[in-house]
Amino acid sequence: MDIFKAIKTRRSIRVFTKEEVSEEEIEEIIDAARWAPSAGNIQPWIFIVVRDPKRKERLSKAALNQLFIEKAPVIIVVCADQERSKKVYGRRGVNLYCIQDTAAAIQNLLLAAHALRLGACWVGAFDEEAVRRALNIPSGVRPVAIIPIGRPAVKPGAVFKRSLNEIVHYESF
Amino acid sequence: MDIFKAIKTRRSIRVFTKEEVSEEEIEEIIDAARWAPSAGNIQPWIFIVVRDPKRKERLSKAALNQLFIEKAPVIIVVCADQERSKKVYGRRGVNLYCIQDTAAAIQNLLLAAHALRLGACWVGAFDEEAVRRALNIPSGVRPVAIIPIGRPAVKPGAVFKRSLNEIVHYESF
Repeated sequence: MDIFKAIKTRRSIRVFTKEEVSEEEIEEIIDAARWAPSAGNIQPWIFIVVRDPKRKERLSKAALNQLFIEKAPVIIVVCADQERSKKVYGRRGVNLYCIQDTAAAIQNLLLAAHALRLGACWVGAFDEEAVRRALNIPSGVRPVAIIPIGRPAVKPGAVFKRSLNEIVHYESF
Repeated sequence: MDIFKAIKTRRSIRVFTKEEVSEEEIEEIIDAARWAPSAGNIQPWIFIVVRDPKRKERLSKAALNQLFIEKAPVIIVVCADQERSKKVYGRRGVNLYCIQDTAAAIQNLLLAAHALRLGACWVGAFDEEAVRRALNIPSGVRPVAIIPIGRPAVKPGAVFKRSLNEIVHYESF
């Protein structure tokens, strides 16, 4: 799929068919994620692939009971390895770079999923401690996104985007 | 350009030819940026396009004297509109979502630039207050990236990426 088409036609998908997502597909989208740039090429990202129904249920609950999450055939939980960024960049590494680096990787992942005709949704609202407990995530590693993935059972419509006029300044704010 | 090719062949470019980058090209890559997802579709991003040599010099200096920055024909400074995210999501909006949302937009921007055969580099190490002063950025808006853009004057080589084995876990950390 053309890059501009992928960027402009990707949508958040929250309803999935029951069809499975293969291990190869999951590997292909995580492979795309890891090509994101990162500060100092630190690559402070970890991906936890969840298919177990009980764990999926716990993730749904941790995500403020957004029940569509556990209905996805697979969920990828993306984590920022704060320790890895901290060693090189201290506080700015923990609070900024490892959040940015993982977010860039997530965007690659979402675009790749869309190009493979999969649907996904970037979920950011969740209880981090509950996710940590559900997946045995150690301290120093922070869950930053829950991404349910499946085959879209809906065709999402148009989405409102702010105009260039509103978001672009020249030379000065 | 195919999405997977764009993701895997994009590199950080720090040496540029003197050739100009047109306004249309800049608009096309910012247009791609604004299609990124964002928490609650808040779109807390602002792009400041800088071509003035004096301002470019100030940005280079603010970025710890990385002098390649001012040599780019154009620089885009990406800002996170913290106030916009705070209104809806409070502290999590300021510290997490608006950083993630702008990072996803930046990744789109870098992929789009690459697809247009432009070169760019995501610079994160800079004195935020100095950037703020150089571009009159008000409080409540945070500069999160400086992105010099031009035509690549170098062909970058391979880049080390961590293997899937190292970054993927199944079911649990």
